[in-house]
Amino acid sequence: MNCINGFVSCYFVFLKLFLFTFIELEKQFTLLKFKLENIDATTGARSGRLKLAHGTVETPIFMPVGTQGSVKTLSPQELEDIGSQIILGNTYHLYLRPGEELIRQAGGLHKFINWKKPILTDSGGYQVFSLAELRKIKEQGVRFQSHLDGSYHDFTPESVIHTQRCLGSDIMMVLDECAPYPCSLNQAIQSNQLTVKWAKRSMAAYLSSTPQFEYEQTLFAIVQGSSYPEVRRESVRQLIELDFPGYAIGGLSVGEPKQIMYEITALCTEMLPVQKPRYLMGVGKPEDIVEAIGLGVDMFDCVMPTRNGRKGTVFTRNGVLVVKNANHKDDFLPIDPECNCYSCRNFSRAYIRHLFKAEEILGMRLASLHNLHFYLELTRSARKAILENRYQNWKQQFLERYFADLNSR
Amino acid sequence: MNCINGFVSCYFVFLKLFLFTFIELEKQFTLLKFKLENIDATTGARSGRLKLAHGTVETPIFMPVGTQGSVKTLSPQELEDIGSQIILGNTYHLYLRPGEELIRQAGGLHKFINWKKPILTDSGGYQVFSLAELRKIKEQGVRFQSHLDGSYHDFTPESVIHTQRCLGSDIMMVLDECAPYPCSLNQAIQSNQLTVKWAKRSMAAYLSSTPQFEYEQTLFAIVQGSSYPEVRRESVRQLIELDFPGYAIGGLSVGEPKQIMYEITALCTEMLPVQKPRYLMGVGKPEDIVEAIGLGVDMFDCVMPTRNGRKGTVFTRNGVLVVKNANHKDDFLPIDPECNCYSCRNFSRAYIRHLFKAEEILGMRLASLHNLHFYLELTRSARKAILENRYQNWKQQFLERYFADLNSR
Repeated sequence: MNCINGFVSCYFVFLKLFLFTFIELEKQFTLLKFKLENIDATTGARSGRLKLAHGTVETPIFMPVGTQGSVKTLSPQELEDIGSQIILGNTYHLYLRPGEELIRQAGGLHKFINWKKPILTDSGGYQVFSLAELRKIKEQGVRFQSHLDGSYHDFTPESVIHTQRCLGSDIMMVLDECAPYPCSLNQAIQSNQLTVKWAKRSMAAYLSSTPQFEYEQTLFAIVQGSSYPEVRRESVRQLIELDFPGYAIGGLSVGEPKQIMYEITALCTEMLPVQKPRYLMGVGKPEDIVEAIGLGVDMFDCVMPTRNGRKGTVFTRNGVLVVKNANHKDDFLPIDPECNCYSCRNFSRAYIRHLFKAEEILGMRLASLHNLHFYLELTRSARKAILENRYQNWKQQFLERYFADLNSR
Repeated sequence: MNCINGFVSCYFVFLKLFLFTFIELEKQFTLLKFKLENIDATTGARSGRLKLAHGTVETPIFMPVGTQGSVKTLSPQELEDIGSQIILGNTYHLYLRPGEELIRQAGGLHKFINWKKPILTDSGGYQVFSLAELRKIKEQGVRFQSHLDGSYHDFTPESVIHTQRCLGSDIMMVLDECAPYPCSLNQAIQSNQLTVKWAKRSMAAYLSSTPQFEYEQTLFAIVQGSSYPEVRRESVRQLIELDFPGYAIGGLSVGEPKQIMYEITALCTEMLPVQKPRYLMGVGKPEDIVEAIGLGVDMFDCVMPTRNGRKGTVFTRNGVLVVKNANHKDDFLPIDPECNCYSCRNFSRAYIRHLFKAEEILGMRLASLHNLHFYLELTRSARKAILENRYQNWKQQFLERYFADLNSR
């Protein structure tokens, strides 16, 4: 009997080991589906293809922001029409409202919001530190009060992975601590140490949990370290050791001078593994995106196209235009005569201005749609230039024209 | 010489007479393009085809309201997708902002707002009496203060025709005085007398003016007389004498009991010329539309589908549903499982409720789109029943189901 029992135990131990190894390998396989296509001849710009559960994303890419499960004012159909390949959702917001359990019941965020292509969910780290009240950070996690009703909540690296499992996003993000700008060196070091510890726990939670739905999810780490090069380097080094499938650069575009943003971005992309995707969080203006692509960034998100659109500010090849202003009162040109979006094919600046003056929602829609189309066209066009090894020229031409009006003043 | 001069004068007098007659005939021709197709076997319900400069409208029809040159929250493309055949604009609102001259410069309202199908413009009479401040009515016209900035303006029957010429609407409406409910018999009589006088002047202004653009416009009169049958009869009699291409019934749905609304409508449709279209202004709820179709009304407009939609109230075959309410928190059914609109094909009540709670504009869009689709489907379905001489049955079935939930409580 003992012999048989021993054999059975042994069998199960081996089976478990075998299965574990298999699952690990399988996970590693799903983690490594970024194919670098080309690195531009004279800049650091890269083009690639990121294979995710809900489709392949062609990089460099701009990702429209759908914080609360809706890219503000727009429908999923419109997002598809302008060529969106991946959109963002926000863990902090969706956790608070409508709640992870409701979205899980709906079959995940994709089904809930009717978006069939990939979704990346931010961890909520940034929102806890920018929106929530009375937050208390401990090694274990962060306790905060909801900005909606003041109720208390706890986020830990593990809970945030769990929430994102319920959301079923294609790309999950680790919980991080985003230091404010400016902050002391000591603050930057401590904040980064915590972020790295949390990243380690996030990876463990990721590996030990399984998807709620019938597809794989992947996980990106977030580099922090404020404006201190040495802290940033340390952050990158430690996160690389954890071997994440992708890396985000966080804590930029939070008020620092442009030059610092570019320098820190360059420092990070130089150190990050070439074969893995890089995502510059929350950046930014068209000129910033164009610069950062040149430094080797693959993915971007920013609320600017939708937020500015809702306020009547639009982006054109010839720079920014405040369509709400009086000088467009009888301006019957489209927002951008060379643009091919629904807004520009069908409506004049005069009409869109009227909509804003009359507080008609269609104005916000048309401006948001155009702006997102502009951003997507920007990364599409950049990608084409990279594939043809002429990124430097493309970038110069874009910037010259974009700032021509400004420079001629 | 005298003889030749006399001959030339004579020639011009005859030419002028000939041209005038020709133009008059031509105008009469363009005025009478309503083809009555069928009158239902057992009710007064009618189906017809109204040929206008921008297309043919199949009646009975519901007309979405685009007061300020936009059907609130929706795009022209969406309006077309749900089968809108004609929409409304409002002379009072568009005159004040962006102004008739700007719209004339844009090539008319159709081009300005990019709507290629017919447009009916209300005269602004109702708005002057409901929105404007400090109005002063004289026989000549009405002086009022803009609700936007307090500036003074004058509307006369002639000026309102001129404004609608600048807008280039397919159907123009005469300036009328809409009496409040309740009002004294004397008030009703006086208000109607003024409205009839204005209608006469409107017709003269119409006949003596020419379109600003390359297409014909038509003109409808408005029956007034409050809740007094004899005043209503007098109104209809006098307006019929003026031989308008179409007649609207105004001054209803302003707070009077439902029974009065139906009685006055019946009284008007019985007297109005069979061969001309009838338009019941500002009415109303689905049950009101269904009743009024049975009484022989062809055209309807109401802000209810869009206004209620923006507040989270939606119409379904089984009655009204407040999608914003807590009982739809985890309700994963579409608004109306039998509905074929974009909202119902793609989104759950739970998601739309979330959008309303999170104050996301897409919620208002999806509810407005569904509601307008519901109203358009209602008149489409009614029209089919009329063509098949089964309106009474159809109406009963619709109402029974629509109120079943209410009755079972």
